Amino acid sequence: MVKVAVMGYGTIGSGVVEILEKNAARIRKTSGEDLEVKYVLDVREFEGDPIHSKIVHDYQIIAKDPEIRVVVETMGGVEPAYTFVKAMLEAGKHVTTSNKALVADKGAELIALAKEKNVNFLFEASVGGGIPIIRPLMSSITGDEIVEISGIVNGTTNYMLTKMTNEGLAFDEVLKEAQAKGYAEKDPTADVEGYDACRKIAILTSIVCGQQVNYQDIHTEGITKITPTDIMYAKEMGRAIKLLATSRQTNDGYVAMVAPFLIPASHPLYNVNDVFNAIFVKGNMLGDSMFYGSGAGKLPTASAVVGDIVDMVKHMNMHITLNWDAEPVTLADYKTNETRFFVRTKASKEEISNTFGKVEFVDIEELADEIGFVTETMSESAYEEKAANLSSVLQMIRFH
Amino acid sequence: MVKVAVMGYGTIGSGVVEILEKNAARIRKTSGEDLEVKYVLDVREFEGDPIHSKIVHDYQIIAKDPEIRVVVETMGGVEPAYTFVKAMLEAGKHVTTSNKALVADKGAELIALAKEKNVNFLFEASVGGGIPIIRPLMSSITGDEIVEISGIVNGTTNYMLTKMTNEGLAFDEVLKEAQAKGYAEKDPTADVEGYDACRKIAILTSIVCGQQVNYQDIHTEGITKITPTDIMYAKEMGRAIKLLATSRQTNDGYVAMVAPFLIPASHPLYNVNDVFNAIFVKGNMLGDSMFYGSGAGKLPTASAVVGDIVDMVKHMNMHITLNWDAEPVTLADYKTNETRFFVRTKASKEEISNTFGKVEFVDIEELADEIGFVTETMSESAYEEKAANLSSVLQMIRFH
Repeated sequence: MVKVAVMGYGTIGSGVVEILEKNAARIRKTSGEDLEVKYVLDVREFEGDPIHSKIVHDYQIIAKDPEIRVVVETMGGVEPAYTFVKAMLEAGKHVTTSNKALVADKGAELIALAKEKNVNFLFEASVGGGIPIIRPLMSSITGDEIVEISGIVNGTTNYMLTKMTNEGLAFDEVLKEAQAKGYAEKDPTADVEGYDACRKIAILTSIVCGQQVNYQDIHTEGITKITPTDIMYAKEMGRAIKLLATSRQTNDGYVAMVAPFLIPASHPLYNVNDVFNAIFVKGNMLGDSMFYGSGAGKLPTASAVVGDIVDMVKHMNMHITLNWDAEPVTLADYKTNETRFFVRTKASKEEISNTFGKVEFVDIEELADEIGFVTETMSESAYEEKAANLSSVLQMIRFH
Repeated sequence: MVKVAVMGYGTIGSGVVEILEKNAARIRKTSGEDLEVKYVLDVREFEGDPIHSKIVHDYQIIAKDPEIRVVVETMGGVEPAYTFVKAMLEAGKHVTTSNKALVADKGAELIALAKEKNVNFLFEASVGGGIPIIRPLMSSITGDEIVEISGIVNGTTNYMLTKMTNEGLAFDEVLKEAQAKGYAEKDPTADVEGYDACRKIAILTSIVCGQQVNYQDIHTEGITKITPTDIMYAKEMGRAIKLLATSRQTNDGYVAMVAPFLIPASHPLYNVNDVFNAIFVKGNMLGDSMFYGSGAGKLPTASAVVGDIVDMVKHMNMHITLNWDAEPVTLADYKTNETRFFVRTKASKEEISNTFGKVEFVDIEELADEIGFVTETMSESAYEEKAANLSSVLQMIRFH
């Protein structure tokens, strides 16, 4: 019998408790142990709810109870989660978290502490919800140099872009609908400005290069400027607009970015729609691979947390080596990144050609007073220099 | 320094040696050790090749060398691979294999032997080539009841069906081309009759239910009867024909099958084309997920073998629990499986309706002397009973 504590009885924390109960037989089989939730840490009481008898308000009760071997952190945010998790690891308990903010900020430090204490700190649910991606990167694709990792890792924005694409709606309309359905929060900033995706690609890039990537160093653009007109052009080009969180290996190190990209129909990420997430991984030996599934939601995310619990129960006396050092890595400047750029402009074809040289024009009959074009492959800084010389830039979206 | 032996220097075995050399720095980082290939077992000499100095012909040299901690088996076939692998495990060495025939037949027994000897027997490369799927099922999706696992797990047939779909070619023409390109073997039986996919779904189902599934118990149909006319109907219905290896949980246990299925455009497997493989996994908590990538080929498959090597080096003194008992499981009879059936016939609409009740007709103008229809959901045995009463059945393909 392994006793478990859950810190934070919100959507995901309650999902973890639910799965541990509903799938107890399966979990006994895969972990080799019976699991019992002994404490749930929350500021609320949940009177009348069966969980009430397990509620505690002081994390020290958990830290000081030697019966507790496994702790689940599903509170979110850096503090007080960081203080609590640190105390649990120092007390020799295994910890799993779904908290991307905590992992992006303190991941390397908490892994080092777990190693020192010969316990585990796992965080499969922090990226891609229920999709197994952290463990495959840490334990499966370990013989490869990861040349690229690019993900649709925010379900809210993917739902919105899918709606805009399928129904021709504007950003504001779709946002309202997403909020009404509970897919977007009242303050949608973290999702629509790409901040959530930025934390997640910081975590993925840290794992891939084995060093600390600071999310503040990652160039981040959201989807607020995407319009139905952009989507008309995307369709004309046989592409889809997706908010990608992407890292590519270059001669100067990894270059990371969050931004809307135009993805061709032949790419596996093209068909990832609605609230689904997917992470595309290209290895120098493996080639292309993709991990697809529910990137958010109570039970899918809790499923990933429970997978971590089982793994920790199987490694109760052994630290699982995770290759992520605290030493910060210097990312390559995103302005050195080379790609093709799609641009909408009021400028004439002649002016465009004079400024950008060889381009592919994208002409949409209904749009009389503007034109689209796609540049040849060039660096971000070369693009900016040329674009500054163009009399009008209505929009720019990168090719992927 | 960990010394490794490779048994079988064919496509995959030589790929493993190549990756261990080319990605040595990365592998040192992820495994924490330097790896060196000390022996390569093969009947050939490879004179003039740098590998020549490592070639041995007697597996006992490897089994008796205490320096060898990790053995790679990439010979294929049940014997003599089984004898060799067993000897290595008995000598206390870790073993990874890419050999689906060996794993399907002897997996549970070799896992039990590895457990007894406190070493590991891993086989990520035996299904889906480079795609991480065995380890995600064993170590990640462990809190879920797996409701369904369905894969496109044979690259040869997927390439052929993609060609037939995109170019309207007949089976025989496409087979010749696939053979010319090296995607299909001279004797293509194992691929086109579904035997290869059958071994793979036996392995996946064994893992999912934790008991031995005998591949002989799995109803298996190949793609040899698929015609360009079938593909015309598939397109008319907005579906694609894919050879699926599939297992679904039912009240009577798992029902497993290999056969061509008609997959709707909304399903993530619909867009898996050419030689790519993908495995769709539905958990009762996770919901839908999919693992996509290169299902075959020298370096992708070898990449999965090397991932196993790294995992074994990280678990040098610990057996990783794999939930696959030798006790055989009784699969549910595939004739109890319920689905919709697409049928092509020369019978009249009236006769069809009299026999099958409510159906959806699929009428293709160019095909004057036949008609297609889709039944309501019914069991395989109910379908067979009705179909026996129809004056003509040109083709039947199941919906997925």
